[in-house]
Amino acid sequence: MTGQQPNTVKVAIVGSTGYGGVELIRLLQHHPHVEITSVISSSSSGVPISDGFPHLTNVIHRNLDGVDPSEMAKAADLVFTATPSGVSSKLVPQLLEAGLKVIDLSGDFRIKDGQVYEEWYKHDAPDPDVLASAVYGLCEIYGEQVKDVDFISNPGCYPTATLLGLIPALKAGWIDPSGIIIDAKSGVSGAGRGTSLMTHYAEINENFKAYKVNKHQHVPEIEQVLTDVSGKEVTVTLTTHLVPMTRGIMSTMYAPVLDAYTEEDFVKLYREYYEGRKFVRVRDKGIWPATKEVSGSNFCDIGFAVDSRTGRVTIVSVIDNVVKGAAGQAIQNLNLMMGWEESLGLAFTPVYP
Amino acid sequence: MTGQQPNTVKVAIVGSTGYGGVELIRLLQHHPHVEITSVISSSSSGVPISDGFPHLTNVIHRNLDGVDPSEMAKAADLVFTATPSGVSSKLVPQLLEAGLKVIDLSGDFRIKDGQVYEEWYKHDAPDPDVLASAVYGLCEIYGEQVKDVDFISNPGCYPTATLLGLIPALKAGWIDPSGIIIDAKSGVSGAGRGTSLMTHYAEINENFKAYKVNKHQHVPEIEQVLTDVSGKEVTVTLTTHLVPMTRGIMSTMYAPVLDAYTEEDFVKLYREYYEGRKFVRVRDKGIWPATKEVSGSNFCDIGFAVDSRTGRVTIVSVIDNVVKGAAGQAIQNLNLMMGWEESLGLAFTPVYP
Amino acid sequence: MTGQQPNTVKVAIVGSTGYGGVELIRLLQHHPHVEITSVISSSSSGVPISDGFPHLTNVIHRNLDGVDPSEMAKAADLVFTATPSGVSSKLVPQLLEAGLKVIDLSGDFRIKDGQVYEEWYKHDAPDPDVLASAVYGLCEIYGEQVKDVDFISNPGCYPTATLLGLIPALKAGWIDPSGIIIDAKSGVSGAGRGTSLMTHYAEINENFKAYKVNKHQHVPEIEQVLTDVSGKEVTVTLTTHLVPMTRGIMSTMYAPVLDAYTEEDFVKLYREYYEGRKFVRVRDKGIWPATKEVSGSNFCDIGFAVDSRTGRVTIVSVIDNVVKGAAGQAIQNLNLMMGWEESLGLAFTPVYP
Amino acid sequence: MTGQQPNTVKVAIVGSTGYGGVELIRLLQHHPHVEITSVISSSSSGVPISDGFPHLTNVIHRNLDGVDPSEMAKAADLVFTATPSGVSSKLVPQLLEAGLKVIDLSGDFRIKDGQVYEEWYKHDAPDPDVLASAVYGLCEIYGEQVKDVDFISNPGCYPTATLLGLIPALKAGWIDPSGIIIDAKSGVSGAGRGTSLMTHYAEINENFKAYKVNKHQHVPEIEQVLTDVSGKEVTVTLTTHLVPMTRGIMSTMYAPVLDAYTEEDFVKLYREYYEGRKFVRVRDKGIWPATKEVSGSNFCDIGFAVDSRTGRVTIVSVIDNVVKGAAGQAIQNLNLMMGWEESLGLAFTPVYP
Repeated sequence: MTGQQPNTVKVAIVGSTGYGGVELIRLLQHHPHVEITSVISSSSSGVPISDGFPHLTNVIHRNLDGVDPSEMAKAADLVFTATPSGVSSKLVPQLLEAGLKVIDLSGDFRIKDGQVYEEWYKHDAPDPDVLASAVYGLCEIYGEQVKDVDFISNPGCYPTATLLGLIPALKAGWIDPSGIIIDAKSGVSGAGRGTSLMTHYAEINENFKAYKVNKHQHVPEIEQVLTDVSGKEVTVTLTTHLVPMTRGIMSTMYAPVLDAYTEEDFVKLYREYYEGRKFVRVRDKGIWPATKEVSGSNFCDIGFAVDSRTGRVTIVSVIDNVVKGAAGQAIQNLNLMMGWEESLGLAFTPVYP
Repeated sequence: MTGQQPNTVKVAIVGSTGYGGVELIRLLQHHPHVEITSVISSSSSGVPISDGFPHLTNVIHRNLDGVDPSEMAKAADLVFTATPSGVSSKLVPQLLEAGLKVIDLSGDFRIKDGQVYEEWYKHDAPDPDVLASAVYGLCEIYGEQVKDVDFISNPGCYPTATLLGLIPALKAGWIDPSGIIIDAKSGVSGAGRGTSLMTHYAEINENFKAYKVNKHQHVPEIEQVLTDVSGKEVTVTLTTHLVPMTRGIMSTMYAPVLDAYTEEDFVKLYREYYEGRKFVRVRDKGIWPATKEVSGSNFCDIGFAVDSRTGRVTIVSVIDNVVKGAAGQAIQNLNLMMGWEESLGLAFTPVYP
Repeated sequence: MTGQQPNTVKVAIVGSTGYGGVELIRLLQHHPHVEITSVISSSSSGVPISDGFPHLTNVIHRNLDGVDPSEMAKAADLVFTATPSGVSSKLVPQLLEAGLKVIDLSGDFRIKDGQVYEEWYKHDAPDPDVLASAVYGLCEIYGEQVKDVDFISNPGCYPTATLLGLIPALKAGWIDPSGIIIDAKSGVSGAGRGTSLMTHYAEINENFKAYKVNKHQHVPEIEQVLTDVSGKEVTVTLTTHLVPMTRGIMSTMYAPVLDAYTEEDFVKLYREYYEGRKFVRVRDKGIWPATKEVSGSNFCDIGFAVDSRTGRVTIVSVIDNVVKGAAGQAIQNLNLMMGWEESLGLAFTPVYP
Repeated sequence: MTGQQPNTVKVAIVGSTGYGGVELIRLLQHHPHVEITSVISSSSSGVPISDGFPHLTNVIHRNLDGVDPSEMAKAADLVFTATPSGVSSKLVPQLLEAGLKVIDLSGDFRIKDGQVYEEWYKHDAPDPDVLASAVYGLCEIYGEQVKDVDFISNPGCYPTATLLGLIPALKAGWIDPSGIIIDAKSGVSGAGRGTSLMTHYAEINENFKAYKVNKHQHVPEIEQVLTDVSGKEVTVTLTTHLVPMTRGIMSTMYAPVLDAYTEEDFVKLYREYYEGRKFVRVRDKGIWPATKEVSGSNFCDIGFAVDSRTGRVTIVSVIDNVVKGAAGQAIQNLNLMMGWEESLGLAFTPVYP
């Protein structure tokens, strides 16, 4: 970062024509210390980004660049790679080699065990040394670890909502790690911009469907972190569903409670755990989060019900999958990495209604 | 039924201006042995029903009648009461007294224990003798019991999807009745036609929200039936959610599997259990039901995943809440009550897309 | 139709895996005199149709057949061709040659002037003789002409809503044919099942967009019919829009009124014109049609406003694009062709809500 | 504004629990020179605003205040009145009297002729002197007039989209003012937060409907401005429709072109007219605006088609009804009133997807 003003980071965005990429552009317009110096797409370089995304007209005046690590190193200090799985694994090592910092939004560097990665992602695992250097950037949990590092692996959308909802109780030893069931629901933007019958409007509008039951690639990511924070081998049941809406994830989680903790206890525990963390909002007893209440923002809202009849707690956690579940958390990671306040440039009020 | 053609039943519909009532009208247009002789509303008698529901223009030419049991007894053989909870409990005894058969779509006669009813419904329980005479009309389970009876209590929407999904495995002793978790999602029509902020378009569109967690009045209905069929006291965890769509319910259910049963085993068990029942469609292994695939029809589609890592089965069951979850099942009950084929007049293909 | 029961027609459906094709299957389940003997797809023959459309499980038990006119001639008396433009133009002549009756749902045989067709459709025009033999099946207008013919060209969705809304006033000489403006809106199912960015859920949900302004291929179809019925050369302004919903078309039409006709006059004129035609419902003064009020049905609802300040009438016409705008009208045409009552098997009440 | 820092304005928001009010709160969080010192609701004072709007938790920490002009005068320099029609007309004079500046978002002060107001709004017209003092704040047209005034009447949503689309051509004399037809479509948030059957989710979802045809109270507002800028008495035909989406307005406009102007001519004319105005984006020839491309932002996008066959131009204009059609334009007016850059604090990128 020599030769520039101390407080400005120049960033490039690879995958600028995906939903994660354009959301980075939207959010970064408000960041006081970031300058976007290159927007990159492997498929359509040379044309203005606003050709494919007319909403960006008069917002950003840039032509798309091609993928060229040495050019990126000249233009930028840091690269956000909002690329598909299987692409990041090959590209990120070149970027790091070129001296760039990297925040990777794909799933390629989240699973520490290459064999597990290959089993769930059906791609070759990345280079082990590079993989080992990636820090998993779940900000409210691993915020200390991402400071000053060069390479952050940004968490997945389902894991973000789910882990923020489970970790305080699990760490406190209040819930049974062997009995965790996660019923997760996502808006359709989570499937990306690639067209398919599953995301064809007439097929998914007025439809609610389950998919990849127990087979979603976010299962090992969730289990890895829960195992890490609890110190016990955790396996989870995860059902993922598509909701006929564009943005938003809700994770509804169930676990046996190990003692007579009440809803008030849970509220208190979580508020203490997330003390000082602006983006987690723990709801009062009896108030349930709704995805629209976080839409467009970096918030994660959490609520609880304890059923004394069954001895289970129900935890409901919501995020905007494109913000806290992708681009917003990536910027939060950038802030932490740079030693800035984590909410810098991220003070977006949810868009309601 | 003296003085009429052998094969025709004259029916009146109370609550004709609610969604359950107009759906009865839609479906009954195709029934070969039913004649609607009165459509009744407590709030707007005297005007054509098509005034409030223009889609019924040229479909049914009737003015709304007021609620008058003795008039109903002259006009009809049987009454569908699609009335709110707390209304049916008072009206149905009068209708039975007047010599009418009744199929009640409210929740007032589903809970056999009046005290439990009052706890969950916050209304006075109905007359105990009348309550005792009600047969719970979950057709595929209690079809034999509803034959020739005079009074059927039609099941709730969440219970229908849930119970059809759980009972075969529970009866077979394949799942642990103490570990049942139900994550249920409903389209907004389930909340009825009464306006409220919760069902205001701008509040629920592009929103996914949980409500009444563990507090929904369908909890005791589900538990009562599961206890009945399993012979063990069953309590369940139930989360209900609102989906931004009009029709459809999905119940995603979780339970510990008590032996090494596979997905194929579950498919086989359920297909044998529902052999000959036209409205339950058990999906092949790996195929997940979607609400749109039953929309507008009386089908209930069911699919399974067994996770050997956790020892749990995930059961997904979908219905159209207004059809199989209300008006369609009420007609199916009528068919069974009259000794007709249960699908008579109900051969609606799902509306897709 | 020799060698079969007098009152049953055997039909084959080409394009069974498109939305028009599956809607034909849904509707024909209720037709008393039609038997589907073959469902045909060029892309996926040999597999059960319910593989790609699980909602058809237990509804129709047929494998998809390939496109083979001589096989079709053995299996069926009549073929519905729900094929894309440019395909029907080549296939239909072969089917007619093989002795089959044909109702074509594509746009290939609607434009009588081959040169105009090529200009708007960008395909080669069909064989002139075959084209000349096609009767344009706008049932309420040309119902007499389709009786006993062998080949019907089924109207487009926008033209159906628009023409039914304009013709009575135009024929009566009440509106100025040189001043017709049509602002049309369609649900997304009108774009078919082929995936594209335009119909990608996250792009069109919560979005309202104009497309093909004055360039839609339905322009010449509308102009041809208006010219025919008015006896004057009519050109129209047509804007087409996509609405974030699955089904439904509204055509809002504007024209100068040539005398002091009131809204009541228009209502009376239209009711007289459509006297006895079950599927056109003319709304009372001050009542506006809504697409949901015809959804799933073959109805076309029409309403009027006359503005004495500007001397213009506003005519609003709605249909379900998949039913009256495609499959439903095709069956209505079949009924008329066979000399049956036009509503036979089409008495579907709109699905509401 | 004595006794405070030169560059900060203290504002109060009356009607904080309506959609216009909460949108003002969302947007003003980003304004560098505005401090919200009071959020006011006539119906629920004393409780935190986040009770009714949980999305504002951690965003704004304020209890709702009651409506008390003298208290407002102590707390604030300027009041945004996002109150219903018929309320503002009475409240605003009191606020002005108390020495407050006012930007009124209701329709009460837009119509200069009190008699016309009463005819369309069915309320008593406001005090004539106060009415005369209101400046109509359509920023790109009357931006010069609002500088340094004390009272601005903020335009309606339909008029904003429509007038920005028509004025340059009308002023240039390119279109015939006697032939203007406006076909307008709005998302449901435009109807406000009050519940009604028309905005009940199950009634409007998957539905497209016309309402108030030629009767909308925005007709005289549009005509007044068009008459003002053209110097001729203009009457328009206006159809308003509800679209099943939350935000967004599209106005599709038709007019006879008075000479052989092409689409390129229109693009050039409009770009010159709006030169330097950041919020109007004139689309290239052949590119059509879509509501989602302005969602959450203060942009107005405009596109054109000229049909030489009919001699008409079709102009398509889109805005976010809650932003440019209400709260955003109100803040833009504040900026102009204060002599600040008009886009201050309003650089919101559209939320896409």
